[in-house]
Amino acid sequence: MGYVHIYTGNGKGKTTAAFGLAMRAAGRGKRVCIIQFMKPDDGYGEQISARKLGIEVYAFGTNKFVNKNNPSDEDIELAQNALKLAKSKINDGYDLVILDELNVAIDFNLVSLNDVLDLISQLPETTELVITGRYAKDDLIEKADLVTEMKEIKHYFRKGVLAREGIEY
Amino acid sequence: MGYVHIYTGNGKGKTTAAFGLAMRAAGRGKRVCIIQFMKPDDGYGEQISARKLGIEVYAFGTNKFVNKNNPSDEDIELAQNALKLAKSKINDGYDLVILDELNVAIDFNLVSLNDVLDLISQLPETTELVITGRYAKDDLIEKADLVTEMKEIKHYFRKGVLAREGIEY
Repeated sequence: MGYVHIYTGNGKGKTTAAFGLAMRAAGRGKRVCIIQFMKPDDGYGEQISARKLGIEVYAFGTNKFVNKNNPSDEDIELAQNALKLAKSKINDGYDLVILDELNVAIDFNLVSLNDVLDLISQLPETTELVITGRYAKDDLIEKADLVTEMKEIKHYFRKGVLAREGIEY
Repeated sequence: MGYVHIYTGNGKGKTTAAFGLAMRAAGRGKRVCIIQFMKPDDGYGEQISARKLGIEVYAFGTNKFVNKNNPSDEDIELAQNALKLAKSKINDGYDLVILDELNVAIDFNLVSLNDVLDLISQLPETTELVITGRYAKDDLIEKADLVTEMKEIKHYFRKGVLAREGIEY
């Protein structure tokens, strides 16, 4: 089975590190696919650039807030569809498959941990799988080869500025 | 003065997070420049892709190992030139300037911490500065707005495979 990387933790850089990895692999001519859970296809800066590089990006989410204790049917259906697409890309022999925010989708019970563990157990030798998001489950960490925690050690909201285009999204 | 981000720690994802941030900013039409310390311009996957997106990438390093206790004149000169270029890009009004592995170059005494603190003090309001690399100095962390530690919590060399093209470089 191929390598499984997890980027988790409360710090910045989980999604950007995954996109950077996609960029690196695309530069080497690898087949790369990014599947985003709980995020809309909203023309995020990184989605725009990734597509310019021939990286496939699929975003499964709405602009609405997902209620952890009571997710909508739509939230669940979108996440399930994202997982289905992930299976299909893995079976299709992609070199790198990134499942962005999957940890959060598991934590919110939009997809089951067992389905994800099952996906990992079927990962071909030649496919790298990258999973991002806070709240990575212990059972997933157990299965992973490489786990990095992005840990916020300083975040100074110096100017009261909120999310800035091109930097935060 | 603009925002200063630091990505440090012993885990994966510092350089890729910076490249992912560059990708995000480039997707929004921002002027982005990546200056790499102690790395050769070797056609790394991420260098290739970044250039395709119109991101300027300059790498100042050789393929030779830098001896921390006795760096060569060439190592020092290359790092000094990298810092000079950084100053010039900052003065030129770039939106995002990434100084990849600068923390290591400081730790190896290729550039002085004071020169870097000086650079930060002159940072225009509209420029974001991102500094990556292990061993970030406390004085630099003090000046930064956002500091993320990439912390390796698991790295399982399962198959004895070393660096893999398109994934590690």
